[in-house]
Amino acid sequence: MRAASPLIHCITNYVTANDVANGVLAVGASPVMADAPEEAAVFGGLCGCLYLNLGTLNGVKLSAMLRAGHAAAEAGVPIVLDPVGVGATSFRAEAAQKLLDELPITLLRGNASEIKAIARAGGGVIGVDADAADLVTEEDLPRAVAFARGLSARLGMIVSFSGAIDVIADATEVYVVRNGVDMMPRVTGTGCVLSGIAAAFLGAHPSRSLEATAAAFTVMGLCGEIAHGALLPGEGTGSFRARMVDALSLIDDAALQRGRKAEHYNFTGKESL
Amino acid sequence: MRAASPLIHCITNYVTANDVANGVLAVGASPVMADAPEEAAVFGGLCGCLYLNLGTLNGVKLSAMLRAGHAAAEAGVPIVLDPVGVGATSFRAEAAQKLLDELPITLLRGNASEIKAIARAGGGVIGVDADAADLVTEEDLPRAVAFARGLSARLGMIVSFSGAIDVIADATEVYVVRNGVDMMPRVTGTGCVLSGIAAAFLGAHPSRSLEATAAAFTVMGLCGEIAHGALLPGEGTGSFRARMVDALSLIDDAALQRGRKAEHYNFTGKESL
Amino acid sequence: MRAASPLIHCITNYVTANDVANGVLAVGASPVMADAPEEAAVFGGLCGCLYLNLGTLNGVKLSAMLRAGHAAAEAGVPIVLDPVGVGATSFRAEAAQKLLDELPITLLRGNASEIKAIARAGGGVIGVDADAADLVTEEDLPRAVAFARGLSARLGMIVSFSGAIDVIADATEVYVVRNGVDMMPRVTGTGCVLSGIAAAFLGAHPSRSLEATAAAFTVMGLCGEIAHGALLPGEGTGSFRARMVDALSLIDDAALQRGRKAEHYNFTGKESL
Repeated sequence: MRAASPLIHCITNYVTANDVANGVLAVGASPVMADAPEEAAVFGGLCGCLYLNLGTLNGVKLSAMLRAGHAAAEAGVPIVLDPVGVGATSFRAEAAQKLLDELPITLLRGNASEIKAIARAGGGVIGVDADAADLVTEEDLPRAVAFARGLSARLGMIVSFSGAIDVIADATEVYVVRNGVDMMPRVTGTGCVLSGIAAAFLGAHPSRSLEATAAAFTVMGLCGEIAHGALLPGEGTGSFRARMVDALSLIDDAALQRGRKAEHYNFTGKESL
Repeated sequence: MRAASPLIHCITNYVTANDVANGVLAVGASPVMADAPEEAAVFGGLCGCLYLNLGTLNGVKLSAMLRAGHAAAEAGVPIVLDPVGVGATSFRAEAAQKLLDELPITLLRGNASEIKAIARAGGGVIGVDADAADLVTEEDLPRAVAFARGLSARLGMIVSFSGAIDVIADATEVYVVRNGVDMMPRVTGTGCVLSGIAAAFLGAHPSRSLEATAAAFTVMGLCGEIAHGALLPGEGTGSFRARMVDALSLIDDAALQRGRKAEHYNFTGKESL
Repeated sequence: MRAASPLIHCITNYVTANDVANGVLAVGASPVMADAPEEAAVFGGLCGCLYLNLGTLNGVKLSAMLRAGHAAAEAGVPIVLDPVGVGATSFRAEAAQKLLDELPITLLRGNASEIKAIARAGGGVIGVDADAADLVTEEDLPRAVAFARGLSARLGMIVSFSGAIDVIADATEVYVVRNGVDMMPRVTGTGCVLSGIAAAFLGAHPSRSLEATAAAFTVMGLCGEIAHGALLPGEGTGSFRARMVDALSLIDDAALQRGRKAEHYNFTGKESL
């Protein structure tokens, strides 16, 4: 990754844009944060991966996303979609649907509620298994995996959601990642940063997209663990935020191999494990 | 507060939005930062408190504020207004006036100069007591209190301003808070964060709005003191910024009771103390 | 500087606006971050220095820059232009050209690639010396200095670029600064902050603009060194970012004199040294 240093074009929200840029830099890639429709297509076509994030969305930003997305599609550049808050308003739901309809998204990354909202918006019959808000406990894991595989098959892209347990799936292969700590969602933007890091990994390894995505989830969760372990007395979420970036900037392959809690399942030729 | 975890809809500036979101998260509430007119009303109507901040204001953001504000008003949701820089340009003065005219603001929070500008814009006769820029010394405190009470009575909302001494007032009751350290205004956005925390406290305790606001001022000032006390040699405003969030995320009721420097005055039936 | 505390009007990108504001505050100046065309002229005319940064540029922001810039020009306020990413798209190139054509820019500050793009856009014959991307090594330094002087003479403003070696030049005088560490470009916005600090120094010392700019480069680079030296085991780019602000907020004249690695050259009456 650090050798490839792919250019990652991020069209994202202003709340966590700084964290996304520093996260992408920390893992060794180069962020470009341009979001004007006048120039979005330029960066979309020449970057190593395009990352679209629906936080603080507006009509102008959506237009930039579509232009960058079409340029990326034409150039064969992978695209990551983080549908922040997609279940909350019809404005975001329609924007997400438009992006999913028009662009060949490579990776969909959200929390379980967001992915559930995407699944519902698509009109498919989902049943109780779609209650993705509950899909991150050990008990619900088999249902979560089946849901992610089904949605991946329907949408034709990698489907992933993060939580206490992360699930990263295409139609036939699944990674389950158990790295991470409870403090992560108490810092704004950890999900946005995770999607940015996944974009960086996809930009470096476009031909191994599922594995690259799973590696990004593992790295982010493990860096959360390292940051939490490094907290001194009196340090809370403010120092934790900085220490997560510290860990992202310092982690190496040996630490990753030691600390990873990721499992890989291959469903080729069978319905369940 | 941490049990209630109210949703706080923040329409705020992009300079300090990240700090506001992390501050709101640190005290246990959930921030939503959407500022598109297309969806502002949704969040305004379902949140526990709406927070409007005039930093990096533009016409689109103002339109979102009005839509969110009307939805909040209809739903009985409290509204916090932070009139950043209102005295500097007619654009901001007119925006603030429009928000004050159209919306049932619960809490006005600014520095003394901003509150003074609001008082002047209202056209009321204020006299020398309105020289709010000087209202934060011990000597000027009685005048500051009278000014805040008078403005509160006129506007029909809680009026508060922060500085070396904070004043939080409605027409008959006043809190005076002396927590805080000089370093706080040397970090951008401490005022914005304070308003966000006040919104979080109002969202958790809407029926005790004056007390909740005073608690937010006390917590913010005390966390400034804790952060300053935690600075190591060589640490300045950069580490102080992170350590303030640390303190916000860790402070508990016992520490608050020990460290609070807040006084409460009740003027019911009397003109002055 | 800290005594003067000039008001610095920054029209800049949302990715690093928080860092710029905290950097400007850290060195003792007062940032105003307004970017609405409706009010940009007010701040442009009354500030001590206007800072224009092309990151996350859009048409509205450009309009605000032009209005603020014309007001600054009329009031004799110095203007800093940071042409972020100017070589990447025609949208930014045209915006930069418009600002250079219409406004009396005092200081142009970018990395070598950006300054090279500016030089090319101007249509001048530049030859091999214009290969500014290579102009920051010891070997290339004489060519870099000649290039910067030539561009300064052509554009009528201070030309500066930062890298392993910084060059700050007008037509006849040049500063070469060797402060700084490799980690600085691994944090987003260090260039944006440097330009903001240069604006703060220009606002405090408008009559000694070249010297003030060189001082800003020296301070920024030295604070990078101090921050890097302060890193504890396990700390990476996240803590480094906070420690740079720490150093900016604490550095004094004695430390600056001890740590500065700046050389001054006067070319009056001679073509080269």
